[in-house]
This record gives sequence, C-alpha cells and structure tokens, in this order.
Amino acid sequence: MSDNPLLGIRERITALDLKLLELLAERRDLALDVARTKQASHLPIRDKERERDLLNALVEAGKKQRLDGYYITRLFQLIIEDSVLTQQALLQQNINQDTLRTARIAFLGPKGSYSHLAARQYAARHFDHLIECGCSKFDDIFKQVEIGQADYGILPIENTSSGSINEVYDLLQSTNLFIVGELTNPINHCLLSAVDTDLSQIEVVYSHPQPFQQCNQYLNGFPHWKIEYCESTSAAMEKVASLKSPKAVALGSEPGGALYKLQVLEHSLANQKDNITRFIIVARKRVEVAPQIPAKTTIIMATGQQSGALVEALLVLRNHNIVMTKLESRPINGNPWEEMFYIDTQANLNSANMQAALEDLTPITRSIKVLGCYPSETVVPVNPT
Amino acid sequence: MSDNPLLGIRERITALDLKLLELLAERRDLALDVARTKQASHLPIRDKERERDLLNALVEAGKKQRLDGYYITRLFQLIIEDSVLTQQALLQQNINQDTLRTARIAFLGPKGSYSHLAARQYAARHFDHLIECGCSKFDDIFKQVEIGQADYGILPIENTSSGSINEVYDLLQSTNLFIVGELTNPINHCLLSAVDTDLSQIEVVYSHPQPFQQCNQYLNGFPHWKIEYCESTSAAMEKVASLKSPKAVALGSEPGGALYKLQVLEHSLANQKDNITRFIIVARKRVEVAPQIPAKTTIIMATGQQSGALVEALLVLRNHNIVMTKLESRPINGNPWEEMFYIDTQANLNSANMQAALEDLTPITRSIKVLGCYPSETVVPVNPT
Repeated sequence: MSDNPLLGIRERITALDLKLLELLAERRDLALDVARTKQASHLPIRDKERERDLLNALVEAGKKQRLDGYYITRLFQLIIEDSVLTQQALLQQNINQDTLRTARIAFLGPKGSYSHLAARQYAARHFDHLIECGCSKFDDIFKQVEIGQADYGILPIENTSSGSINEVYDLLQSTNLFIVGELTNPINHCLLSAVDTDLSQIEVVYSHPQPFQQCNQYLNGFPHWKIEYCESTSAAMEKVASLKSPKAVALGSEPGGALYKLQVLEHSLANQKDNITRFIIVARKRVEVAPQIPAKTTIIMATGQQSGALVEALLVLRNHNIVMTKLESRPINGNPWEEMFYIDTQANLNSANMQAALEDLTPITRSIKVLGCYPSETVVPVNPT
Repeated sequence: MSDNPLLGIRERITALDLKLLELLAERRDLALDVARTKQASHLPIRDKERERDLLNALVEAGKKQRLDGYYITRLFQLIIEDSVLTQQALLQQNINQDTLRTARIAFLGPKGSYSHLAARQYAARHFDHLIECGCSKFDDIFKQVEIGQADYGILPIENTSSGSINEVYDLLQSTNLFIVGELTNPINHCLLSAVDTDLSQIEVVYSHPQPFQQCNQYLNGFPHWKIEYCESTSAAMEKVASLKSPKAVALGSEPGGALYKLQVLEHSLANQKDNITRFIIVARKRVEVAPQIPAKTTIIMATGQQSGALVEALLVLRNHNIVMTKLESRPINGNPWEEMFYIDTQANLNSANMQAALEDLTPITRSIKVLGCYPSETVVPVNPT
C-alpha cells in the first residue's frame, strides 16, 4: 500500500481539508462575535461595502497564488452567505428568547421527499437536533402543530414551474398558526442509479408523473426508455435501490437519492432549469424580527365587493413605500363570490410604515390579519469589482 | 478607531480568510500531484467513490464543530469541482504540449457582455494572461482566429430559453477552425443600480429588449416603471452608471454590472430561472483529449435525400454505444433542399467505438467532418450519503 504515491497525496489532502474545516468553524465563531457587536450598536447585519472590499482583496491575493477569481468569488460568496444566515439566526434567538435546541418538525412525505430535505436544511441552521414527523397530508401538518405534537410545520407554498400551492393557502385561512420563517430550495431532477451504468445501458426509468412531465424535453431524446410511474419520487428511488440494476434508473432529487445510496448519472434535467420551491415554516407562537435583518410580513385580507377595492388597498402599501413581493387571491371557504388576498411584503411588522399602512387598510377592508413577520433568508451575493 | 470592537474582529476575519486562501492554493498543488500520478498510471481523473468518502468524513467532522452538513457539502463540492477542472487542464496541456500562457481571445460585444464574461472565465482556468479582442459580429470572431489575429474565439451556441444560435452553426459549416473546448454559463438577469436605492424609488429601467422579454413576469408587478430600450445590456449598464440616480436601474448580469461598479438590487429575475448559455471555443489547431478525462466529439454531416437516411446514421451511433447529447439540423448554404446535421457525442475521437462509428458512417453519408474533440467541463457533483 505504502508504495502507492496516490495514497500519500490523498492523505495530505484529507489532512488539509480538516484544517480548512477548523478555519471555517473558527470563522463562524468570529461571525457570531460580529453579530453580538452589531446587536449592541444596532447596525444592520449586512455591510455590502465591507463584503465587496473583502472579496476584492481575496481575488487579488488569490491571483498571486494562481487561484482564479471566479473560483474564489463563488467560494467566498458561499462563506459570506453562511456568515450572514448564522448571524441572523443568533439575533433571532436573542430577540425571541428562543432556547429550543431540539425541534419536532412536521412535513409532507416519506424519506427523501423535497419537503423532508427542506425540513432538514431548515433544522441544520436553527437547531441542534431534529425530530422528524412525516405526514401524509398538508392538513395533518397544520393539526400536528396546532395540538402541540410538533413545534414547527414546513409547507411548500409556491413553485416556479407549477405556481402557487392553493391547498396550503386555503389552510392558512382557518389556522391560528403564524408564519415564522421561509426557505427557498432548488428542485433539481436527476437520473439516479443504484450501480455503475451509463445512458446507453438504461432500459427503464421510474418516477412520479410530475417529474416525468417537467423533464419531457430531455426524455424525448431517449424514446426507447420505458417509463414506469410510481406514487412518489421516494417510492421510485426505493424501487431502483432494491433492483440494483444498470438498466433501471429513477428520476428524482440528488440529496433524496443519496438517502437511498443512489448515484447521480445526469442532473438538471427539467425543461425549466433550476425549478425553485418556496417553503414557509409555521408555529403556534409569533416571532419578532430583529431590526438589523431584512424582514417579510405576510397579511391576509378580504376587501369589499365594490370594484377597485383591491387597487385602493394596494395603493395604501405603495403610499407607505412598502414593496409587495407576492399577491395571491383565493375564494373564501363557503363564500364562493368573495375572495381573500394573500400579500407578502418586504417590511418589518414593527416598522413605522407597516404600522401606518395597517392602520390605513383597516377601514377599507372587510377583514385583515397578519399571518406573520419573519426573517428573509435570501442573501443576494455581492460581487468583486 | 481602536476602541471599535467590530474593527478588531474584522481584522481577525481578514487574516483567517487569507489563511483559507493559502490552504486552497496548497490543495490545488496537491490536486496537480494527483493528476501527474494518474497520468502515469492511466487512471481516470474522477474517482466518485473517493469523493463521496471524503464528503462523508467532512460532514461528520463538521458536525462536531456545529457546521451544518448542507453548508459543508456545497462548499466542498465547489472545491472538488475546481480540483477536477484543474487536473483536466494539466493533462490537456501535457497531451497537447500546449505552452501558450498568454491567449488572445475574440468574443462578441463590449465590456460586460455575457460573451466577454465567458472569455474571462475560460481564460482564468487555462491561461495566465488574457488579451481581449472584442468583436461586433460572429463572423469577425471566426475571421480574427482564421487569420491569426486571435488564438481563440468564443461563441455562444445554445441557450436554454432562446434555443440554438443558428448563425454560429451556419458559420461552422464553412470554417476550417476546430472546436477545442466548451463552457456553460448561467445567465442571471439582475436589477442593478449605481447608488443605494430600493424598489419603491425606481422610476425607469434600462436594458436590451431580450432581457426585458425574459423577465416580463417579474416586471408586470411594477407597471409604473418606465421601460427604456438600449442596444445592449452593456449600454444599459453604462447609462445607469453615468446617471448615478436612485430612480434609474439596469437589467443585466451581476458580474457585468460589477465592471460598471453597479450593485445588485434583485437577482434571478428571468421567467425561466437559471437560463444557461453554452459556449464553444474554436482554434486553428485540433486538440487531443487525454483518455483519463471525459470527452465530447462534434461531427457535422450531410445525408442523402432518401427518407430514413438520418435515422440510419443515428442507429450507427447507437450500435456503437455512443451517446448523442445534441442534434441540430441546418439548411446547406446555397442548397436550400438539403440539410446538414450537427451532432454532439459523449465520446473521445480516439476511442475504438468512435473510430468504428465514423467508418460505418462514411459510406452512408454524402459528407462527414469532425469539427473537434474537446474535454467536457461539466463536473456532476457527488453527494454525501
């Protein structure tokens, strides 16, 4: 073994990677120190000028060591994103005196579903331990949290390719839960196999009808592949894992496939590239959002039947300089001629302009309710100049 | 200054980031040692098993330091991608005895165009210095390389939202240049501003008609914004940079905007998320692709007019287990009733099956030409289990 030079180099790489990891952990601790300082001084968490200066300096320093600028930029954008989200999580814990370190999260689906992966990703940043509560219906997720069987529920609310998820909007009408967070997650359909294979050996593909439809442009290139429908992508992955054949593949997510020990043969197969799903997190208790971090507020309202009532309400938001990021209308349960409007805004509920807007909206709407105010977790990256 | 605790922590972060950079440079050198070993032993560059083991160990080690697995996975996937591409570049240099360290690359457009950014990105990995040759037409790019004014030409060949770029396919018919490389690049339309502003202050948006069209779903949410058309996104960015107003923004790329010192206000605005463009790199001299790395071969052929001639040709590829990744048909210049076919395959031109396929294709086609064999630069990431 020892006369294999590859092994020696690999050992050095492994040791170096562990050193990288230590530095990353140390960097996260320093980022938390920054957050504590900013909390005291009321400065915003993000300082894009500082981020840009840092990136510029790193790209310059990297050049001297022949590391290319694109690589360094992408890598440090990821490191900065982690810093920002870690800092935001700390400030949120402090303002909400949130000491929950183990969370029970209810989500839709079996092992490897997109909701399951989203729950794990949310928990990784916010809690030390996750207790997974898989549910078979959206309704059950709300119930589990309402009765205290789960601390949080995670629900998909919109998807860039299939649009809004109406059932979840309708359930939000009648719940007494609050929105306490959000998460956006790319959905990346892949060909997954249990054993080494290549495209020319494939004979059959297993998946749920929706991924097949979303990837039909790619699949049209292989008309000889047999299509087998399954009740979920998780079921398809399980099937392929059990077959262990170079002829059988599943169409599903990369990290979902990893849970079934499947390997990725091809990725990014959807007609619409980087299909993104937005999830909301619901809980029994409202949260406050620290003023140092960007917030979203979601409201639900019913306007009168007279024409122009909605426009009038939207003008109120505009007059108070409140940016609306989403407007969704849904019929009112049991009242088919009237509609409810869901509005996401880029505003902190405690801000003076949001409070003033709510005051102006109350007399011109039939009902209005704040579903929640929560931290925005979209970190727009800064680029070097 | 020294009693500001933030400055002290930031100095420590900056010092730590430089240490990270040193380790990354050292890691790249070790990756090159691995490539040299593999060249001698004829082992393939990628070893997914080893990558997966490494990721699993890092995720485990990270957990002990409270670094979440998603973060570590994304970060090390990027580091591994860099290793693989650096190793591939070394093997390519060795096999082609390529000692060119300064390259003149011809591309379409002014500063900040998507082609300009692609040229820079390609050069960053392959050369020490880049001499930029901006051209105003695709035709000029071919000419510059043909007459030796430039070493390489970079050309967009297909786009996930607007499809194939026919003009480039047609120019490939009559050139004596070869395809020596490829690059895929995400096109991410952003709102860019010269000064601090927010969505509620915007009054006018500058861009080229195509980005406006590709982002119309987003723009429909802001009907009061005035749309101003420009001849290119570069021109729009230049305009906004000169106006320095919180009311004026450009719709263009993030890194392009950075060249004009613009900041990103919103990103990922296209209706179709992560719009991807594939570029080809052309040169006067063919390259060989080292057998340790994945290759693509592009051929152009004209079949006879009899029906079924194309299918017969495609069956030849299938019989030799050659996977076709792209098929494009174009009319023959000056001969409107006949067509040329462009075929991209996942095969090394020197492989036994590709040579056998070409032999079988020759008698059943009216003409056939190999446009080039080049390294595939798509590194499909491995996930931890």
